[in-house]
Amino acid sequence: MPLVVRNTPRTDLGLVDGLARAGVATVHEAQGRTGLLRADIRPIFRPARIAGNALTCEVAPGDNWSIHVAVEQARPGDVLVVTPTSPCEDGYVGDLLAGSLLAHGVRGVVIDAGVRDVAALTEMGFPVWSRAISAKGTVKETPGNIGTPIVCGGAYVRPGDVVVADDDGVVVVPREEAATVLKAARDREDSEAAKRIKLNAGELGLDLYNMRGRLADKGLRYVDYTEAS
Amino acid sequence: MPLVVRNTPRTDLGLVDGLARAGVATVHEAQGRTGLLRADIRPIFRPARIAGNALTCEVAPGDNWSIHVAVEQARPGDVLVVTPTSPCEDGYVGDLLAGSLLAHGVRGVVIDAGVRDVAALTEMGFPVWSRAISAKGTVKETPGNIGTPIVCGGAYVRPGDVVVADDDGVVVVPREEAATVLKAARDREDSEAAKRIKLNAGELGLDLYNMRGRLADKGLRYVDYTEAS
Amino acid sequence: MPLVVRNTPRTDLGLVDGLARAGVATVHEAQGRTGLLRADIRPIFRPARIAGNALTCEVAPGDNWSIHVAVEQARPGDVLVVTPTSPCEDGYVGDLLAGSLLAHGVRGVVIDAGVRDVAALTEMGFPVWSRAISAKGTVKETPGNIGTPIVCGGAYVRPGDVVVADDDGVVVVPREEAATVLKAARDREDSEAAKRIKLNAGELGLDLYNMRGRLADKGLRYVDYTEAS
Amino acid sequence: MPLVVRNTPRTDLGLVDGLARAGVATVHEAQGRTGLLRADIRPIFRPARIAGNALTCEVAPGDNWSIHVAVEQARPGDVLVVTPTSPCEDGYVGDLLAGSLLAHGVRGVVIDAGVRDVAALTEMGFPVWSRAISAKGTVKETPGNIGTPIVCGGAYVRPGDVVVADDDGVVVVPREEAATVLKAARDREDSEAAKRIKLNAGELGLDLYNMRGRLADKGLRYVDYTEAS
Amino acid sequence: MPLVVRNTPRTDLGLVDGLARAGVATVHEAQGRTGLLRADIRPIFRPARIAGNALTCEVAPGDNWSIHVAVEQARPGDVLVVTPTSPCEDGYVGDLLAGSLLAHGVRGVVIDAGVRDVAALTEMGFPVWSRAISAKGTVKETPGNIGTPIVCGGAYVRPGDVVVADDDGVVVVPREEAATVLKAARDREDSEAAKRIKLNAGELGLDLYNMRGRLADKGLRYVDYTEAS
Amino acid sequence: MPLVVRNTPRTDLGLVDGLARAGVATVHEAQGRTGLLRADIRPIFRPARIAGNALTCEVAPGDNWSIHVAVEQARPGDVLVVTPTSPCEDGYVGDLLAGSLLAHGVRGVVIDAGVRDVAALTEMGFPVWSRAISAKGTVKETPGNIGTPIVCGGAYVRPGDVVVADDDGVVVVPREEAATVLKAARDREDSEAAKRIKLNAGELGLDLYNMRGRLADKGLRYVDYTEAS
Repeated sequence: MPLVVRNTPRTDLGLVDGLARAGVATVHEAQGRTGLLRADIRPIFRPARIAGNALTCEVAPGDNWSIHVAVEQARPGDVLVVTPTSPCEDGYVGDLLAGSLLAHGVRGVVIDAGVRDVAALTEMGFPVWSRAISAKGTVKETPGNIGTPIVCGGAYVRPGDVVVADDDGVVVVPREEAATVLKAARDREDSEAAKRIKLNAGELGLDLYNMRGRLADKGLRYVDYTEAS
Repeated sequence: MPLVVRNTPRTDLGLVDGLARAGVATVHEAQGRTGLLRADIRPIFRPARIAGNALTCEVAPGDNWSIHVAVEQARPGDVLVVTPTSPCEDGYVGDLLAGSLLAHGVRGVVIDAGVRDVAALTEMGFPVWSRAISAKGTVKETPGNIGTPIVCGGAYVRPGDVVVADDDGVVVVPREEAATVLKAARDREDSEAAKRIKLNAGELGLDLYNMRGRLADKGLRYVDYTEAS
Repeated sequence: MPLVVRNTPRTDLGLVDGLARAGVATVHEAQGRTGLLRADIRPIFRPARIAGNALTCEVAPGDNWSIHVAVEQARPGDVLVVTPTSPCEDGYVGDLLAGSLLAHGVRGVVIDAGVRDVAALTEMGFPVWSRAISAKGTVKETPGNIGTPIVCGGAYVRPGDVVVADDDGVVVVPREEAATVLKAARDREDSEAAKRIKLNAGELGLDLYNMRGRLADKGLRYVDYTEAS
Repeated sequence: MPLVVRNTPRTDLGLVDGLARAGVATVHEAQGRTGLLRADIRPIFRPARIAGNALTCEVAPGDNWSIHVAVEQARPGDVLVVTPTSPCEDGYVGDLLAGSLLAHGVRGVVIDAGVRDVAALTEMGFPVWSRAISAKGTVKETPGNIGTPIVCGGAYVRPGDVVVADDDGVVVVPREEAATVLKAARDREDSEAAKRIKLNAGELGLDLYNMRGRLADKGLRYVDYTEAS
Repeated sequence: MPLVVRNTPRTDLGLVDGLARAGVATVHEAQGRTGLLRADIRPIFRPARIAGNALTCEVAPGDNWSIHVAVEQARPGDVLVVTPTSPCEDGYVGDLLAGSLLAHGVRGVVIDAGVRDVAALTEMGFPVWSRAISAKGTVKETPGNIGTPIVCGGAYVRPGDVVVADDDGVVVVPREEAATVLKAARDREDSEAAKRIKLNAGELGLDLYNMRGRLADKGLRYVDYTEAS
Repeated sequence: MPLVVRNTPRTDLGLVDGLARAGVATVHEAQGRTGLLRADIRPIFRPARIAGNALTCEVAPGDNWSIHVAVEQARPGDVLVVTPTSPCEDGYVGDLLAGSLLAHGVRGVVIDAGVRDVAALTEMGFPVWSRAISAKGTVKETPGNIGTPIVCGGAYVRPGDVVVADDDGVVVVPREEAATVLKAARDREDSEAAKRIKLNAGELGLDLYNMRGRLADKGLRYVDYTEAS
């Protein structure tokens, strides 16, 4: 039987916004290369960058009824995360639902299915990461779960986990780890900033990362083209 | 034997232009969620929105000869709709053919195959919806049919049916139904406009669409997170 | 054992730059419709157009160590061409590596795998053609070959072959044929310019290319719609 | 509104069975290389070969209600042809429905979606050509059309058209052309039988089909390996 | 840091074996249509049917080191469930590993990646459900987690959950629900057995499931072909 | 202009047959994990295992003329390796061509495109590895090259290289390395045979391959489930 879980936990929006600033690639590295959604979940316009508390929503194939149910559970700072119970590319979200979500403070949508009205959504600046763009409408016959853990884009997402999405894709941070991951992300950014200056100045990664010895151990050989031919 | 059917019917351009204004998602809904092409037929640039009379064209794999034949049959307001007889991603249309089609009043191309010279086409503002972008050239050895019914992107298209294409994809309206569908599309737009105002103001779809009773009938239950865990 | 071949041949940058101006579709035609990479290798931003000497690089799945090794072998005017030893969509190149490549004169990257930090790369104007965008990081455990012939995107690429990449895709020109292909590309451009004027003025390809006789020989028949139905 | 069209035309089963004997590849050639479904519609077991009158059925995504409606319209010698209104891989047909279809004389199923209970169907010898095998169940909320023209696997199918399916795939023959196509298929088989004997005996297609002159006209050149290198 | 969790819970093998007998489609229905893996995870030979306790294993792309680590944690009645940290088709398991797994009582493998030596595995009767068959070997450089929850084929799997796999695909049953689901599966089988007899005898699902009224409510209309045309 | 290169080199059939016995996975490992074709090139029946000298053949999309040309160049022990100049799934080879190839001593076909008449080919025992099964016929208008180096399934193949194909896929061995690779393959088989006995007896790979120390260095930690939760 379909279930709506109310008052699910949220992560502090200060942490959430910090993770947004770090961006998907950095956050993903900072939490040990975990939590990434499949690479075919892509933004409908670029550039786009948000983070928010996951408001999870399960939908039947070709049926967006649950999303209407989900709007009532939304809180400012949420990102709606939608997964179908079997693969479907239909356009579950259009400009009407986007307006409704915006009115309830939702920052964007991540959906392992399709979206429509993308010209209007682009004009509104309402970001969506989806697997497809499709004008195909949906019915309202089979409600699904709201506020329960789901798998979206191959990643496990619980309500209140932090969803970070930008031009590189989407990553999920478990809510208990948000603070730790943010700290690690900032450390990584600091470390990268120093390296960036050196690399941009022409220093080789081989030297900066001290790789030559290990490469030799792995048997890497250098030959001149004239010898190799 | 390949066939060119001349003087195929066209739909009145007043209706056609009305359908363009309504857009793909609305037209698709207005005709009972039918006529949509597969979602992998995508515009080469965005935003783009056109409608026109289908000028149908069947091509052999890797062979664009038919398209040259089709140009002669074009009339102002047409959209060229091309389908290969077996799956092919080659670049059937480039900037030369686009210029030729433009000179004959063709508004754009929908092709279940590839297109090339997309930088030039983008600069010209000549819209193409295709399954692939590919520089691969084609031969001129095997002519196909022009002006006969075809299946393109999984949809059945007859000459003179109305093809509406925008950022959401492509939909086909049978020419006999163009007026009825346009009327239904406008009714839908009016109805949506009223709803949009309410939804943007924060009214819930659950209330606006009167969904709560039916959801309860379907067994939807609400629990608090603290009880659910 | 992994190998780095140093001082591989390069093609004269005058020829390379000429091929860039001609563009992928024209170069591909000019060399007899060969050398094209698969159409799913796409630019991360558009418009983009470069050509350069191929600096080839083979990587293990999920491992970008070789790319660090490759930077040292780069020369101004190179394009880094990367292929994984088995299909992988991970983000092998990000903004740090891009900065390092730029510092060594590399004009862009062609990779049959994934790329990340695409917002930053877009801002830097550093073009990449890739099969995927993915934030997924890579390890540094298994070096591969640099400067050896590889297959990338289904095309055979040797170091110093000319890689031309634009919005239509990527094509490879064997270094021995660069001059001949450039000559043929220019001839083709001249011939197309003349045709473009005529086609834009409404002349039919059927007449311009003298196709009517051959079409009749192939059995092409014309009928009027009223007879066909 | 969903529609059931009763008493649709059927093709004579003598013709149907003749087309089954000819097989998909021969029938496809005999009708001018048209009518083939996409190659990803595959049999669940091999070998399998059937032909029958198309009993067309349109289903909503994730909803197999229409199939129950279709059974009542079935006649001995039919093949059920099912298409979803948007792409879906769910298992629309299982062993219960297969038993029901068998009891009404249906010879098999062609479905541009999924099937389940394939071990049981294989044991029953009930052939299905589908795009996927999936245990995913379906709901019964949204009826679709029965007995109307549909597009299935990219091919246009009307009720009573002949569907021929074997290990090579599925082809549709318009009912008006069944007799002509059967005649052409038999002629082709006779012609092929003679050629098969010669080819199996080592005669070259180059000579049997008299190709050498035309190949020379196309510029085909022969060189010895020692000269080519 | 990679982690091996030892002595993870297991589900009673009596329940496990009962679920194997019910099969994937029935179990999936019995637990409310949840827990199915993606349909592209297919058995390397058919027929095959097993169930077992999930022994979870996370692997780096192109690296099967973890699987060697997992063998030590195996107990009789386990099914090894492997997921790569990013999409990979390499052949992670071959006949040597299969022999090792068999020696430790493992009943089969479910892997969201590739497998090799399938001729030998088929001869051994060792069943594998995989996304690809690939001879591509893997390295041993990056260990992953064993015995932790993972997402495999789009489904969430914890150690000791019951994995049921047959010709229809793979489904996961949470270990806490195994008894309840087995009970529901048996009830379903009983109910289906009675229906199967009636359907095989020609009774219509329309009558057996009492569908006619609800279909009429949905607006389903019947017309004769002669009226419809 | 299309070219036929005659009298291309062949590898000694003693070596070729030895490589067939070793099989694809072993040969691929023995030559340093190179030369594998993409995993979507699959055998039309299983089990199947052959090796032969590559007779290379390039075809235009939807055009199998070159294959007729290739038959004349075949020698006993050859394997026909076919690649289209752009992606195509058409059925280039059927039972007539297979009979002709067999009559000239060809052992099988590897094709990065489609094949048809698979029921007949299976009955004949003529093995084909292909990317698709499709009844779609081809024309004879555009000849391609025979006996030149090609890329097939993402691998570089020269005439006379050894093609080994079995249930795991297809691998190419450069003709100069055939003897060395065969030697390495046999050494590998000997080494594996000893390991197989131990693994089948229950010895752990962790001990047999002496992995525990290196795993600890990589930071692998063991915890008990009761501590981990």
